Amino acid sequence: MIDVTFALVEEAVRILQGVAHCTPVLTSSQIDTRSGARVFLKCENFQRVGAFKFRGAYHAIARLMSSQPSRVFATVSSGNHGQGLALACRLQGATAHIVMPKPFSAVKHRAVLGYGAQVHVAEDRSCADATLRELVSDYRAVVVHPFNDPFVIAGQGTVMVEFVDQVADLDIVLAPVGGGGLLSGLCLAAQALRPHMAIFACEPAGALDAMDSVKQNRIVPMPNPNTIADGLRTSLGELTLPILRRHVTGFFAVGEEEIVQAMQFAYERLKLVIEPSSAVALAPLLRQEPQLFGKRVGVVLTGGNVEWLGPWPYLDGTETMQREGT
Amino acid sequence: MIDVTFALVEEAVRILQGVAHCTPVLTSSQIDTRSGARVFLKCENFQRVGAFKFRGAYHAIARLMSSQPSRVFATVSSGNHGQGLALACRLQGATAHIVMPKPFSAVKHRAVLGYGAQVHVAEDRSCADATLRELVSDYRAVVVHPFNDPFVIAGQGTVMVEFVDQVADLDIVLAPVGGGGLLSGLCLAAQALRPHMAIFACEPAGALDAMDSVKQNRIVPMPNPNTIADGLRTSLGELTLPILRRHVTGFFAVGEEEIVQAMQFAYERLKLVIEPSSAVALAPLLRQEPQLFGKRVGVVLTGGNVEWLGPWPYLDGTETMQREGT
Repeated sequence: MIDVTFALVEEAVRILQGVAHCTPVLTSSQIDTRSGARVFLKCENFQRVGAFKFRGAYHAIARLMSSQPSRVFATVSSGNHGQGLALACRLQGATAHIVMPKPFSAVKHRAVLGYGAQVHVAEDRSCADATLRELVSDYRAVVVHPFNDPFVIAGQGTVMVEFVDQVADLDIVLAPVGGGGLLSGLCLAAQALRPHMAIFACEPAGALDAMDSVKQNRIVPMPNPNTIADGLRTSLGELTLPILRRHVTGFFAVGEEEIVQAMQFAYERLKLVIEPSSAVALAPLLRQEPQLFGKRVGVVLTGGNVEWLGPWPYLDGTETMQREGT
Repeated sequence: MIDVTFALVEEAVRILQGVAHCTPVLTSSQIDTRSGARVFLKCENFQRVGAFKFRGAYHAIARLMSSQPSRVFATVSSGNHGQGLALACRLQGATAHIVMPKPFSAVKHRAVLGYGAQVHVAEDRSCADATLRELVSDYRAVVVHPFNDPFVIAGQGTVMVEFVDQVADLDIVLAPVGGGGLLSGLCLAAQALRPHMAIFACEPAGALDAMDSVKQNRIVPMPNPNTIADGLRTSLGELTLPILRRHVTGFFAVGEEEIVQAMQFAYERLKLVIEPSSAVALAPLLRQEPQLFGKRVGVVLTGGNVEWLGPWPYLDGTETMQREGT
C-alpha cells in the first residue's frame, strides 16, 4: 500500500487546485467572548457537497484513474463520503456506485442521485458489504474507502495546508474524529508545516472508540454507537490509528446535549449551519476547556448537511409573531 | 435637519472603524449555477447583533453624544434596530430605552435585555408611541428613529463602502426595502463610488408600499402588511423616499413562498442562517430574473436573527436516522 506522507498531501493540494473550494476562515467575537480563546473557524461546511469529504474523494479518483484502467468506483456510505465520491466521479467522467445502508437521510439520498451516481440501497451494513463485493466482481469496481485510504487521507490533509496559510500562529486545532481520515490528514500536514501545533480530537462520549483505540493501540470496535453525530460512529482504520497515536495531542469527549447546544450556538450566534459531527469540535470551546483558554484555536467545521426543519408551520406574518410573542 | 450626503457616510466609516465588523463577502457555486449570475453575498448576518442595524445605531449614538448633553436614548422597535441601539448605547456608556410593541419574539426581547437596555413592553403600536413620548418628557430621551434619521442612514451606507472595496466591478446590488434606511445609505455610497452600478430594491409582494411610494412620489402607508419578513413591514420615511426616487434602478416583488424557499436554499445549500427580510433579496436570483443573468450581482444579507427550531425532537442517534430514513 502507498505510504501516507506529507508528500502525498502536497500532491493532493496540486490536484485539488481550482476544483475544491479554498474555504473561508471566519471569526466571531461571540465565540471568543464565550470561550476565552481566539477562535478561527475553517468552514468546510461551505465546501462542495457541503463537507470536507469532497477533497479526499476527488483526490482518490484522480489518482486512481491515472494509475489503473478502471473508470468505475464504489463505496459504502450513507453520508458525506457518498456525496463526495458521487460528485468526484461525475466531474472526472467516471461512474460511482454508492451503496447506502439503511437507515439514511432522504436528503443525502437525493443528493447522491443528483450527482449522477448509481445508488444501491442495502437493508443493513452486512447487506451493504455483500453488495459492494458484487459490484467489485460484476463491474470490476475499484473501492474507495471513506477513510482507510492513503489518497483519501492525503486529500483531507489539504484542509490543514490551507488553514495554516490563512491563519498565522495557530496554537491548537480541534477536529472531530470518526474513522480518523480527516484527523490523520490534518496531523500529517501539521507535522510538516507546524510541528509545535497541538491537535485535539473531539469525540462523542457515546462513541469514544477512537480514544480507547489510541490508548490501547488496537482498533477498538464500536458496535453500538450512541450519538446523533452520524459521521462519527465508525471505528478507526489500520492506516489512521498509527497516525493518530503518533500525532494527536489529546482527546475531548463531548456529550449529546453539548452537541445540540453547539449546533444551536452556531445557528443563533454564528449564523452558520453545521452538522452534529462539526458541533463536536465546537463544544469544547463552549464549555471553556482550560487547555484552550487564551489560545489561538482553529476549529474545522467539517460539514453542514443537516435537514431544514422548515418550512415553518406558519406562513402568515401575523401568526408568526403571535406564535413567538411573549 | 442634517443633510444626508456621502460625506456623512464617510464620517460613519471612520466612527465605525474597529467597532462594527467588516463583514465577509461569500461566494457560492451553488447560487451561481442556480441563478446564472456571479453572486457575492455581503454577510451582514455576521454583523454585531446579527444585523446591519448595529451600524446605523452606533453611528447615531456617537454623533448625538458628541453634539448634545443627553446620554439617554429611546426608540420603538421590536426588531434588530432595538438590539442595535441597545448594544450601541452600552458600548458608549449611554442608556437605551427600547419600546417593544407586541407581538414580538422572545429571542429579541432577551437579546435587548442582554445588552443592558431598559425595555418597555407596549400593547400595540399606538401605546408604544405614547410610551416613547413619555420617555422623551420624563427622561429627556433623544429618539433615534430606525430609518428616518440622517445618522442612521449614513451608518447603513458603510455596508456599500466595504462591499465595493471587497468586490470589484459589481454590476448590480440587491437589497431589501422596508423603511428604506439601508437602501438609502447604499444608494448614497454607490452614487459617489460606483455611479454606474444598478441598485434594485426587493420587497415582499404582501407589502409593496415602497414601490408604490416611489411611483406615486408620496409615502403610501402600509396599514396591513402581509409578510413574514417582519423587518420590511414599515412604510418609507420623508428622508428615504426622495433618495430612493433618485437612485433606485427598479423593484423586485417577492412572494411569501419565495421568501421561505430562499431561506431554505440559504440553509441547505449555502449553510447560512438568514432572516426572512434577507431572503427577500436572495429570491430574485433563485427565480432567475432575466435582468440579473450573466451579471456580477451583490446581495446584502441583512441579518440572521431567526429562531432555532431545535433542539430536535430526537436526541438518540438511532431514532434520528429512523425518522429520516426512507
